[in-house]
Amino acid sequence: MKRIKVSNNVIRRLPRYLRKLDELNEQGVSRISSGELGKQLGLTPSQIRQDFSCFGDFGQQGYGYNVNTLRQDIATILGMDRGFNAILLGVGNIGNALLRNFSFEEWGFSMKAAFDIKPELIGTEVNGVPILGQEQMNDYLQQNKVDVVVLCVPKEIAVKMTNDLIEQGIDAFWNFTNVELTDPNSDVLVENMHFSDSLLALSYFVSDKADEEIARQNRQKRLNNRT
Amino acid sequence: MKRIKVSNNVIRRLPRYLRKLDELNEQGVSRISSGELGKQLGLTPSQIRQDFSCFGDFGQQGYGYNVNTLRQDIATILGMDRGFNAILLGVGNIGNALLRNFSFEEWGFSMKAAFDIKPELIGTEVNGVPILGQEQMNDYLQQNKVDVVVLCVPKEIAVKMTNDLIEQGIDAFWNFTNVELTDPNSDVLVENMHFSDSLLALSYFVSDKADEEIARQNRQKRLNNRT
Repeated sequence: MKRIKVSNNVIRRLPRYLRKLDELNEQGVSRISSGELGKQLGLTPSQIRQDFSCFGDFGQQGYGYNVNTLRQDIATILGMDRGFNAILLGVGNIGNALLRNFSFEEWGFSMKAAFDIKPELIGTEVNGVPILGQEQMNDYLQQNKVDVVVLCVPKEIAVKMTNDLIEQGIDAFWNFTNVELTDPNSDVLVENMHFSDSLLALSYFVSDKADEEIARQNRQKRLNNRT
Repeated sequence: MKRIKVSNNVIRRLPRYLRKLDELNEQGVSRISSGELGKQLGLTPSQIRQDFSCFGDFGQQGYGYNVNTLRQDIATILGMDRGFNAILLGVGNIGNALLRNFSFEEWGFSMKAAFDIKPELIGTEVNGVPILGQEQMNDYLQQNKVDVVVLCVPKEIAVKMTNDLIEQGIDAFWNFTNVELTDPNSDVLVENMHFSDSLLALSYFVSDKADEEIARQNRQKRLNNRT
């Protein structure tokens, strides 16, 4: 598969394609046109063809995409077959919810271990993942390949933990702390799950819709008064 | 504050500005130039000025932004002062983590009630939020203003629940179910927290970085062999 510089927007759409293709597979759909795929995803057929053309040629003109093959190709592009290992730091409410509910395996990740400082947690398992003490982490990192750290620690210690981990050679973080972990120019990979950013975007859209409705009503009132 | 159609990318940056301004406020910084703000966020000063110009004029040429005023203006644009009410559906691991850890109030939302079907939960409270039975929901919706539903139910029932709620007049969802809730052309507002999309984007970037490193090493080898 050829790799060229691909825009962030395209990369962000790939997981959506993957989920949609999994859904189609479950429904027994084996072939789909870019037109139909676009309709189901709210994208234009040409946008879809353009997205896929970044990675080579997936479809046959006029014949559509093989759902299964396309799914495998996108999974490969996303690195789901690379056997990435992850560890999780901070088994509080959100860390716990991730260990229990989020199927890392399904997305190609192996969740190897979690770390915390609470004595009552250390030595236990959550969903088959062993909880180790934080003081064991450096040894663990020296003895094991870790591709991604899932960071769920309290925000007060997030940046310090990150810097320690970067010193240990970690260069990819899945960040649940709602803190900017690194300098924006750093080449460490940080993928943020900023819950509040998401809720505030929704808050904006809800506000906007309400304002539009009020504007519409006012226009209507003015029209009514005129007649 | 004037409202014009603003691009999604600009809207998505507003919460980041807000978090940064909160951080600056905490550090006692009262005024900041677009240059310095840009540096701290990995954006260019002109991008920042352009973003803010969508909503009117916030800064004074050559004098920078008043951190506190700008923070208030962005909060207003985001609708944080509108007193939005939210309810949460599905008090499993992730719903529970949200109720316990996520400070809805801090972002302008009032979390009024949560709903579940588990008898042992109904009638209890999590972090001051009452847990009601699902069969009480329709009555609740008729008697109370609900602006946003936080959806944390199992994915199998996510679409059906959404359709029921839309029929009850709900038109904004914060979606934690990893399912596309509505037709992409629907005018219902759905803000998705697709955990797997985020992890897969990270997986892509980690793969890409690894490939680049291998390519770099191969180039180096070829160079070494040549000499």
